[in-house]
Amino acid sequence: MNVPNPKITTGALPASRKIYVNGEVHQDIRVPMREISTHPTAGEAPLPVYDSSGPYTDPDVLTDIRQGLPQLRRQWIEARGDVETYQGRDVKPEDNGFVAGDRLTPEFPVKPAPLRGKEGAAPTQLAYARAGIITAEMEYVAIRENQLRELSPCHGTRDGNDFGANIPDYVTPEFVRSEIAAGRAIIPANINHPEIEPMIIGRNFLVKINANMGTSAVTSSMEEEVDKLVWSIRWGADTVMDLSTGRNIHNTREWIVRNSPVPIGTVPIYQALEKVNGIAEDLTWEVFRDTLIEQAEQGVDYFTIHAGVRLHMVPMTVERVTGIVSRGGSIMAKWCLHHHKESFLYEHFEEICDICRQYDVSFSLGDGLRPGSIADANDEAQFAELETLGELTKIAWAKDCQVMIEGPGHVAMHKIKENMDKQLECCHEAPFYTLGPLTTDIAPGYDHITSGIGAAMIGWFGCAMLCYVTPKEHLGLPDRDDVKTGVITYKIAAHAADLAKGLPGAQRRDDALSRARFEFRWEDQFNLSLDPDTAREFHDQTLPKEAHKVAHFCSMCGPKFCSMRISHDIRAEAQKEGMEAMAAKFREGGELYVPAAEAAAAKTEPAE
Amino acid sequence: MNVPNPKITTGALPASRKIYVNGEVHQDIRVPMREISTHPTAGEAPLPVYDSSGPYTDPDVLTDIRQGLPQLRRQWIEARGDVETYQGRDVKPEDNGFVAGDRLTPEFPVKPAPLRGKEGAAPTQLAYARAGIITAEMEYVAIRENQLRELSPCHGTRDGNDFGANIPDYVTPEFVRSEIAAGRAIIPANINHPEIEPMIIGRNFLVKINANMGTSAVTSSMEEEVDKLVWSIRWGADTVMDLSTGRNIHNTREWIVRNSPVPIGTVPIYQALEKVNGIAEDLTWEVFRDTLIEQAEQGVDYFTIHAGVRLHMVPMTVERVTGIVSRGGSIMAKWCLHHHKESFLYEHFEEICDICRQYDVSFSLGDGLRPGSIADANDEAQFAELETLGELTKIAWAKDCQVMIEGPGHVAMHKIKENMDKQLECCHEAPFYTLGPLTTDIAPGYDHITSGIGAAMIGWFGCAMLCYVTPKEHLGLPDRDDVKTGVITYKIAAHAADLAKGLPGAQRRDDALSRARFEFRWEDQFNLSLDPDTAREFHDQTLPKEAHKVAHFCSMCGPKFCSMRISHDIRAEAQKEGMEAMAAKFREGGELYVPAAEAAAAKTEPAE
Repeated sequence: MNVPNPKITTGALPASRKIYVNGEVHQDIRVPMREISTHPTAGEAPLPVYDSSGPYTDPDVLTDIRQGLPQLRRQWIEARGDVETYQGRDVKPEDNGFVAGDRLTPEFPVKPAPLRGKEGAAPTQLAYARAGIITAEMEYVAIRENQLRELSPCHGTRDGNDFGANIPDYVTPEFVRSEIAAGRAIIPANINHPEIEPMIIGRNFLVKINANMGTSAVTSSMEEEVDKLVWSIRWGADTVMDLSTGRNIHNTREWIVRNSPVPIGTVPIYQALEKVNGIAEDLTWEVFRDTLIEQAEQGVDYFTIHAGVRLHMVPMTVERVTGIVSRGGSIMAKWCLHHHKESFLYEHFEEICDICRQYDVSFSLGDGLRPGSIADANDEAQFAELETLGELTKIAWAKDCQVMIEGPGHVAMHKIKENMDKQLECCHEAPFYTLGPLTTDIAPGYDHITSGIGAAMIGWFGCAMLCYVTPKEHLGLPDRDDVKTGVITYKIAAHAADLAKGLPGAQRRDDALSRARFEFRWEDQFNLSLDPDTAREFHDQTLPKEAHKVAHFCSMCGPKFCSMRISHDIRAEAQKEGMEAMAAKFREGGELYVPAAEAAAAKTEPAE
Repeated sequence: MNVPNPKITTGALPASRKIYVNGEVHQDIRVPMREISTHPTAGEAPLPVYDSSGPYTDPDVLTDIRQGLPQLRRQWIEARGDVETYQGRDVKPEDNGFVAGDRLTPEFPVKPAPLRGKEGAAPTQLAYARAGIITAEMEYVAIRENQLRELSPCHGTRDGNDFGANIPDYVTPEFVRSEIAAGRAIIPANINHPEIEPMIIGRNFLVKINANMGTSAVTSSMEEEVDKLVWSIRWGADTVMDLSTGRNIHNTREWIVRNSPVPIGTVPIYQALEKVNGIAEDLTWEVFRDTLIEQAEQGVDYFTIHAGVRLHMVPMTVERVTGIVSRGGSIMAKWCLHHHKESFLYEHFEEICDICRQYDVSFSLGDGLRPGSIADANDEAQFAELETLGELTKIAWAKDCQVMIEGPGHVAMHKIKENMDKQLECCHEAPFYTLGPLTTDIAPGYDHITSGIGAAMIGWFGCAMLCYVTPKEHLGLPDRDDVKTGVITYKIAAHAADLAKGLPGAQRRDDALSRARFEFRWEDQFNLSLDPDTAREFHDQTLPKEAHKVAHFCSMCGPKFCSMRISHDIRAEAQKEGMEAMAAKFREGGELYVPAAEAAAAKTEPAE
């Protein structure tokens, strides 16, 4: 059988090069960043920016989807001495929906034996943090979060409102350790996913974004999903959730995990449901447990577990305008209702923790009862579940498992902060991870925007990771373009939140781009932007010639009406006279100051 | 010479018909609304929605761009007995930039004599309101604002946080009058623009949006601008600003005004600058004054006047990252600096008021020193100007002129509320009208989104009108698609703000759409959305067949994973048993309730 070789987009972004920063505690770690160069006339050092794109954007690294990425973390994990390889679970026909022959997605060519924690060991970042150990992963994310902010001249200036968070001027490895130990942050990093470049999710760090993808029974393939993965991280996705349903789930996931430098999340109940032919009532703890182990061995970094949907909450949803809109939530509600039993996820939660602990799979406690419409926001069902999630958080923490909490959904702006405040209180400051929220229901086709508004706000209020929403939300499966639009929209929301929180150094990129804008360095303006390709393309639609890339105007105003051009004239006049002197004279209000006609003409005219 | 006939888009939106609601005080007024029908299975009355699209979407009205729109208000204006026709100003060669022959945009074919207030009269909505008169315009906007909310079952329920605004349950003509008399709202309605369907801008009313367009020296034509006008109001623009520069300004504007059912705003300094060949220093009060009269006679409804940019403020901008980014602001700053004189706009402000009063041109006091980057937000220059705008507001009010205040710009989220609070305080609650604000500088190509976030927030905080930003902002002139994207994005922001303010009835459309979504009425979901065409197109990209328009799933999840479908099963089970009984049993926790397997299968099975 031929090994498939999905087409992906590689290569550096414009004017960018990959740099690596070494660790001090762990000297072998090399933390990637992207450095954006500006035109020599700017006289500015290149700007380092956070880079989630992995080796695909480093022209010096040869990547091959059929081989998977290098296993950066393998040595770190093994050096800790608390894991063992073992004979993993065999792939079963139901793992891929009993599909065979041509319709079966080929297995990934390489299959190492999985790792697990040794008997009694807890190879989790939380356990290490509690034991006072600064892992390589912790130092890695500390360096990564700083983005070399210590080299920037504006380092130290603070502005913003962080609503009582505890954002440090500079992120030290010890700070990372203490935040993880306190449960306020997580590093999703399954020991069977050594390919990842570690990242941290927590209120005192950069706001992160997640991109959802995955095959469905109706459309898409492994090749498309691997392409979307690489495409989404190119534009800034910090984690990716593989929400595949339908057939070929196991094999598709293997291709994704082996080629992903970002943590991969899943909702294991989806695959479990496929194994029982889509009949919710037929789900059992045994099928679910087997699915957890299957996915943990593959290297999934976080699991969405809807253990907060309990039997007594189901009636709270019946009068809602949109009932239950979480897939996992509705499956579990149906199971509970049918059997008139408490959820097996809730009842077996400690056993789920035992599995997650063995592999350091983080929990993403699912909000199965999140509101699916403005009308249902912040209702009894939603908050009842949130309280249960708080209870489960404590159980998971007692088992040394890392936890984040999922949040809504559809929420009008005036109800967003209550979500954040209640989450912090109920869930003991475990990181919050929300889907939007969408601030109105009336714009299908534009729900990246309806939700980008809510995402920016809740990110500001303290939400640690924002799950993107694409323009196709409510309508269909996102394609490659939708993925990019969703990612860029959420990078905007996350960055707007970082600015408003006053995250040190966050404004450097805004300032660099604004200086480029003011100085008519068009290429720099494009290159410093979140999406240089689109910025350049839009500019070129009206002024395509290369000469216009240095023009001191654009097509919006034309040369005569360019306020920036006029501002330069004003500045030139002001500088001729000397700022202080001019201000003094202006205050006097006299006619002492008689400027030359035009800065441009100044040189050829006699001084007045 | 052939009279041009620009191509425009007409016809009703899907499942929509135009209805007209009659007045009671003024029985001849007919207020247009759009009624969206739902599928008969919904059992719901059609939903009335605010409709800014004018006669173009009424199939019973024959529109002809070469004739202009019917003069709805002519009779109302004349009946008040305080205006007179007179021999207007002749069109001068400089009004169209001295262009002639083929390059001259043809004059609009019809040219009536202009109206002005009789000697000593103030034919302004503010003067009438202060005199206790409820004009036809006031009753019109009262009916329009309510959107027949009194007929809705949820009328009366209130939810939201309006930050101390005074939003009534129901808008009466008297409430409109009192808000205008207090200066808290304006109805921009030049007596020479009798074609408009009156609308109101104020904190206690629906949040409005403005779309900018206009020719520039670099690109675009009259035909394109008329098309963009009709296109922008089709999607919901409440007012349109004609920001034309370059040649043919006068004639292009005439075509726009005569065909616009929404108020038209301009920045007269742009045309004045063209008249002095683009040399800011050559501007004079006489040229500016002549331009004001020219535009007032044509029917421009509001003028942006940058009279707040004063000589002593210019040095405050010199150390900024992006200087002065308002075109009008930079022109005036340069003039002040060059002549070392106080701004002629500031010095002649009372005379400007006298002109505006004669025609009821509203002021939009320009924020010439708004920040053009995150770094410059809320600085000394910006707030110094705001204080001057407050001073000018009082002068304009003393002259019976209506006033709104323009606001920024580029502002990080945590600094937005300060803008709103200071504006209310400095400007005595005159309506605020902001451009965005953009919440980060780093996403050229996506500034409709960076600004949509800020617009939604400031709308919630009390901003009365939001000036759209298109994806081309900072890069080029918006085309037709950009205009639509900008308008829809801002309709989202305005509506999200209405919801959060708790504007009565605002949630009706969200609820209707969410019910359609939950009941798999796909066509209703599309038709109730802000952009039915895009919603339908996105859905059809993966499931194009007509059969899928009644399918109880979509391509996102497929049939097995459709949470809504499962929710229906849950609801069906719950209803079989009776909600109250089921809830009681759930609380007891026993095994009393044994439901049938599936709601779908329920009918064929014996009752248990």
